[in-house]
Amino acid sequence: MPELIINGPEGRRIEARYHHEAKSDSPIALVLHPHPQFGGTMNNQVVYALYHTFAARGFSVLRFNFRGVGRSQGIWDGGPGELADAASALDWLQIVKPDAKCCWIAGVSFGTWIAMQLLMRRPEIDGFICVAPPSNLYDFSFLAPCPSSGLMINGDNDRVVPSSCVADLSAKLKTQRGIKIDHEVVSGANHFFENKIDDLTNVVGSYLDMRIAKDADEREQRRAREKEREAARERERQRENEEVVAPVADTDDD
Amino acid sequence: MPELIINGPEGRRIEARYHHEAKSDSPIALVLHPHPQFGGTMNNQVVYALYHTFAARGFSVLRFNFRGVGRSQGIWDGGPGELADAASALDWLQIVKPDAKCCWIAGVSFGTWIAMQLLMRRPEIDGFICVAPPSNLYDFSFLAPCPSSGLMINGDNDRVVPSSCVADLSAKLKTQRGIKIDHEVVSGANHFFENKIDDLTNVVGSYLDMRIAKDADEREQRRAREKEREAARERERQRENEEVVAPVADTDDD
Repeated sequence: MPELIINGPEGRRIEARYHHEAKSDSPIALVLHPHPQFGGTMNNQVVYALYHTFAARGFSVLRFNFRGVGRSQGIWDGGPGELADAASALDWLQIVKPDAKCCWIAGVSFGTWIAMQLLMRRPEIDGFICVAPPSNLYDFSFLAPCPSSGLMINGDNDRVVPSSCVADLSAKLKTQRGIKIDHEVVSGANHFFENKIDDLTNVVGSYLDMRIAKDADEREQRRAREKEREAARERERQRENEEVVAPVADTDDD
Repeated sequence: MPELIINGPEGRRIEARYHHEAKSDSPIALVLHPHPQFGGTMNNQVVYALYHTFAARGFSVLRFNFRGVGRSQGIWDGGPGELADAASALDWLQIVKPDAKCCWIAGVSFGTWIAMQLLMRRPEIDGFICVAPPSNLYDFSFLAPCPSSGLMINGDNDRVVPSSCVADLSAKLKTQRGIKIDHEVVSGANHFFENKIDDLTNVVGSYLDMRIAKDADEREQRRAREKEREAARERERQRENEEVVAPVADTDDD
């Protein structure tokens, strides 16, 4: 996993790590790290675990340091700047993998707040993983409506983000139509998932396996429906051609 | 209450408001505001209420905007810079009121974290008021030992800082000797004390009244003890003089 520098907003350098899958249509995922106050770098152990959970399922995955963190240039901005960084990172990933069959985003703590804002702006994102979304500290009400299905996961021993706040947020999102929000609580886990990383990756991994299978089914069904519609349109065109030929013959008779 | 600009660290301007009491020995208090993310300016309503609660009790009071907030110069620093700003503000207050009979500090949310760090560095601070100390978000373990007595107060409807976290912090401080930590919970109050400002000022006002009376008593007792000690020293000196005179007379006899 060699070091990678990508171009960020205003020509600033962004430090990143990238796992590449050779297959041209392999899916892509972007992982966003927590606030520096809460261990926020791309090498945070939860970020690292998510990165490898995606990679193990054949995703091309990118994680990076927000501005002012590690070797990424700039000054920590606490929101708007980090959203711009994430948008640049997703651009980079989409240029490297233009034929990816789907696109995911994941965030940890503060990173979920940025991830969900990016989700609102980028309709190509198919799913999300939110680990410990700090709905008590940041305003998530912009998710109205939330455009994609995804997973919220937190620990019931989290002192930074009380479990009840994550439950409230996911309950609110669950009332929205056309998407499905899953919410899982890891027993005994704190905000940093200390000694609970395996439980976290198991839950996230199972959710990804379920979604990958379901999305593949849906893609298959969608393709079958499109094929069927295309065949129907073809039949329609042939019928129209026959009808056009017939009246012309009638006019000749007059 | 005219606008005030004071000199901050590195010659930067700090925007402030000051209430002055003419009596030379009137006490002083400094009030520190929350994180900008949580309404953090010196005009936050909790900050404003604390300021006037002190002023109503004859304190000279200063509140100010941390760097990068309002018209205060600089960039938000999330800790060390704000502590330097607070130290400059306290310096200013002590130059204006060099004969203040006591010195208090108060903070709201993030402001309590800065207030308690300043308390550790300035032994002249006699008491503190901590409103919603975010012990779930920031590390307060440097308070070992906490050098002064004070009040912790929070709402039981606070989603940013769960009431149990403030209770844990004050329970920990209560085990320390030589200080007394009071902890009060305002029923139904959230992190911003919306619609609960009167309850807050009542609790803080009562605590200040109690402490002012108690500290005045203690000062009186201390003064009486010092007078007594001085009188004892004076008697001791007279006895020594008499003893010195006596041996000299003895030597003369030899």
